[in-house]
Amino acid sequence: MTSDQFTETQALNHSKFLWVYDTTLRDGAQREGLSLSIDDKLRIARELDRLGVPFIEGGWPGANPKDVQFFWQLQEEPLMNAEVVAFCSTRRPGKTAEADPMLQAILTAGTRWITLFGKSWDLHVTEGLQTSLEENLAMIRDTIAFFRHHQRRVIYDAEHWFDGYKCNPDYALSTLQAAIDGGAEWLVLCDTNGGTLPHEVSTIVRDVVQFVEHRAEIRKQNPVAGNPQPPTPNPQIGIHTHDDSGTAVANALAAVMEGARMVQGTINGYGERCGNANLCTLIPNLQLKLGYHCLDADRLTKLTDTSRLISEVVNLAPNDHAPFVGQSAFAHKGGIHVSAVERNPLTYEHIRPGQVGNCRRIVISDQAGLSNILAKARSFGIELNKQDPTCRQILHHLKMLENEGYQFEAAEASFELLMRQALGQRQALFEIKEFHIYCDVIRGSCDLIRGVDEWRGRSLATIKIGVNGQDILEAAEGNGPVAALDAALRKALINFYPEIAAFYLTDYKVRILDGAAGTSAKTRVLVESSNGHQRWTTVGVSGNIIDASYQAVVEGLEYGLLLQNQAKAALTS
Amino acid sequence: MTSDQFTETQALNHSKFLWVYDTTLRDGAQREGLSLSIDDKLRIARELDRLGVPFIEGGWPGANPKDVQFFWQLQEEPLMNAEVVAFCSTRRPGKTAEADPMLQAILTAGTRWITLFGKSWDLHVTEGLQTSLEENLAMIRDTIAFFRHHQRRVIYDAEHWFDGYKCNPDYALSTLQAAIDGGAEWLVLCDTNGGTLPHEVSTIVRDVVQFVEHRAEIRKQNPVAGNPQPPTPNPQIGIHTHDDSGTAVANALAAVMEGARMVQGTINGYGERCGNANLCTLIPNLQLKLGYHCLDADRLTKLTDTSRLISEVVNLAPNDHAPFVGQSAFAHKGGIHVSAVERNPLTYEHIRPGQVGNCRRIVISDQAGLSNILAKARSFGIELNKQDPTCRQILHHLKMLENEGYQFEAAEASFELLMRQALGQRQALFEIKEFHIYCDVIRGSCDLIRGVDEWRGRSLATIKIGVNGQDILEAAEGNGPVAALDAALRKALINFYPEIAAFYLTDYKVRILDGAAGTSAKTRVLVESSNGHQRWTTVGVSGNIIDASYQAVVEGLEYGLLLQNQAKAALTS
Repeated sequence: MTSDQFTETQALNHSKFLWVYDTTLRDGAQREGLSLSIDDKLRIARELDRLGVPFIEGGWPGANPKDVQFFWQLQEEPLMNAEVVAFCSTRRPGKTAEADPMLQAILTAGTRWITLFGKSWDLHVTEGLQTSLEENLAMIRDTIAFFRHHQRRVIYDAEHWFDGYKCNPDYALSTLQAAIDGGAEWLVLCDTNGGTLPHEVSTIVRDVVQFVEHRAEIRKQNPVAGNPQPPTPNPQIGIHTHDDSGTAVANALAAVMEGARMVQGTINGYGERCGNANLCTLIPNLQLKLGYHCLDADRLTKLTDTSRLISEVVNLAPNDHAPFVGQSAFAHKGGIHVSAVERNPLTYEHIRPGQVGNCRRIVISDQAGLSNILAKARSFGIELNKQDPTCRQILHHLKMLENEGYQFEAAEASFELLMRQALGQRQALFEIKEFHIYCDVIRGSCDLIRGVDEWRGRSLATIKIGVNGQDILEAAEGNGPVAALDAALRKALINFYPEIAAFYLTDYKVRILDGAAGTSAKTRVLVESSNGHQRWTTVGVSGNIIDASYQAVVEGLEYGLLLQNQAKAALTS
Repeated sequence: MTSDQFTETQALNHSKFLWVYDTTLRDGAQREGLSLSIDDKLRIARELDRLGVPFIEGGWPGANPKDVQFFWQLQEEPLMNAEVVAFCSTRRPGKTAEADPMLQAILTAGTRWITLFGKSWDLHVTEGLQTSLEENLAMIRDTIAFFRHHQRRVIYDAEHWFDGYKCNPDYALSTLQAAIDGGAEWLVLCDTNGGTLPHEVSTIVRDVVQFVEHRAEIRKQNPVAGNPQPPTPNPQIGIHTHDDSGTAVANALAAVMEGARMVQGTINGYGERCGNANLCTLIPNLQLKLGYHCLDADRLTKLTDTSRLISEVVNLAPNDHAPFVGQSAFAHKGGIHVSAVERNPLTYEHIRPGQVGNCRRIVISDQAGLSNILAKARSFGIELNKQDPTCRQILHHLKMLENEGYQFEAAEASFELLMRQALGQRQALFEIKEFHIYCDVIRGSCDLIRGVDEWRGRSLATIKIGVNGQDILEAAEGNGPVAALDAALRKALINFYPEIAAFYLTDYKVRILDGAAGTSAKTRVLVESSNGHQRWTTVGVSGNIIDASYQAVVEGLEYGLLLQNQAKAALTS
């Protein structure tokens, strides 16, 4: 369902259709630590379009050069289905809409839909805008009418709706009346400060639905005199929530159950302070549990990928514990669970993970029982027997290493190598004899203001390895010590294993295990590698960050070679 | 309110009293990536006790040596007020409770309260336990009666309550009846799979409250024949929720509004898969918004500290975006917000941050406007004038550095140094001329199984600095390259600044800025330092992890000296 079909569908019984409105690019970008380039914004918009989101709020054209350019680029290469929506505020107090350059800039963005936010809370009108309550109503009405006059369709965001309604319900409702009079097609109730709880949302949305139905009835009987606009359909209600009370998703659900038909939120719940309603949680709840239609069912299975891809674009680590799409959302750890979930998944999983494109995981950890080890082995394609003493040996070894700080939950490639080693299935492809690293930094000053360009640095690594009975000594330089070491290792190995030319590192994470010990603490390094088709993660732990990195890098190369051999074996068998 | 007062308070009108039950140490520890030592468990228990939590679930005595020892240590050094509760399952099918060694082990933990979980869902009885529905009822009743016989008070956790009730309400209710007959004082309804939504919780809890009231009435008229127990008060209802639908907190609120009087959850929402109900969100909602009494008001102000301290103990980065207690929960970023929130906080904050021990923050970032810079300067005790061209210069410089990858949101100490530099208030305490680092690793093999003990490694750093016109050259060794560099720098500085002996690093975080470039990517290092009283964070960015670490370490020392000088100046003025 695209927004094009909105008017048509209104004629149908659409009580189970919901319009998803994504504001990752605007409200989401307010999150502390998140900053989007134009390319990032375009990638995210195209990803949301592929997911089937009908409305994508792109930004405030004119607020900064980035947002202007974003809308221009989309005019040249439009999205497939989604409507990109421009966002802005009402006209300035005491001026006409036509004379407001900010509103003219909005029109140049060339969108069909515009989301306009206005003040619902009397306190914000008098204290924030420092204008009269009457003028605020005129600002809402005029601005919407201005956009209607320019053939734009308007979504009205009632800012601070719930707080405003609680303080002064009559005035708050009169702002909605102004939006209706201006010709808004959607009235979106915003819990801007995020302080409202679900039972309050239910009551207030119920009041608004009644108010809108009642007014629409009156309006049908007495059309507004002199309104030049063609009659618009009854405005629909939308909901926009924030997570300051930890109930953003529940608040949106409560609103939908009272009749709201648009849900606004962001991917992964990004947003200012505690974030916005997380669409990756909200959509599956609405669609799989309450039977509403938000996305086509085959699109819903892209949700997990979309969530993770966007977290990569914005360069924030994904929340492994996120409902539905997190890596741990369907992870089973305790021994009892694991055997039960394998017998009957329904007894331990609230939905089938595949419905949102996620999958079940059996977690390896220091709480692992034998049944976890067996399940994990099976997922690696290794047949193990519970009676086999190697099983207990692997479990014992695993616990010992985890005690030292290794974490195999996140480094399954290293765990597979460990398991294959215990089973005598791990070939020693090469042997590291020694390595040396030299870093020299000569700098003019420790002056941050004058910048980091003044120093000259160099990292050089030498490495000696044994391969096929030969000793190979190589040296290489790099940006930093780990890059130098990686380069030297590859140089030494490439003649024996030319496949490694296709491997590259996709992520590198460092965690200090005992923060209190500072730079002397143990370091755990996780390295993610790729061959262009597959990704795998390996782990290294040491008191020395170089050595921990080195362990993870070496295992990453080794695991890549193992995958390559398995692929070859599969082809020839 | 401690649990001691529970029976007494029952006589009072306690409709607004709630009992908080923390299960961080048991259900929370199921979180992927979380592993607790006995010391960790004891520290967390004492912290929860200080916070005023009346019930702390400690673990399952006998399940592993750690939990046994935990309870023994608490018998020797008991908590101040909280009840530590032992957790276990019902007796085995087909045996008596007295003959079950698992239940005997629970008694040795010496707790006054025991939480027993039993099956509510017929499917789990027949498929999971593989016993009859009747035997399950007997298991619940007998086990509780066994504990009552041994003078224990019992909380009954109805596992999979909501799913079970939806499948077979009659059977589910008969399990509660068995718990009532056994003598349980609390019936806790558990949404074990986390799939239930708030409106379902409301309906089902309402049914249970009615059921319990009705049964209690009948029982008063017809006491159970042959029940040797003294009559127990009417059991109360509790709620235990998981966040798989993103509604754990809302579900608990819904249950309380229908009459539940115990809320179970974990600090920071730790728990299996997507976690348990987050007590740091639930408690302020209940207490500040719904007017229930969970903690004494002066204890509530310790919530933020408790949340952060426990995240340190479990060694997981705190969630900056957590409601109420997150570092960003009351952070203001956009320019309009900042000026408005300073005029009237109520218009942009749903509670006063101090009520939960948190505080307002004005965020410095590439979206910063001049008013943010001014607000930030004020918080550093620096008076700046908006007209001063230095303001714009700082803003410009900030944006340039953030573009390079610096992030001052998390490194306020570095930002203060930058600001003081622009204002000519930063003294060059020392000048780094050059440094060199040597790492040698000579190892027997790259064999993970045979362990990391076989290699010999060494990191050595030399550094040349200029202080007071003198050149100082020093060398030091360390666990790793950064530790060696830190040691050499301190050695060079200690004669000039003996105060640095008291500084130490409390955390060290590394983030790769462009994951796709792997080990050649830019590295951002955040270093947290302390002088025992205060903590501060500094940042370094470079393509070379050593250099980035070095920048952050140097600024950490410099900022520590600045704090020391300010303290001295305050004393003499």
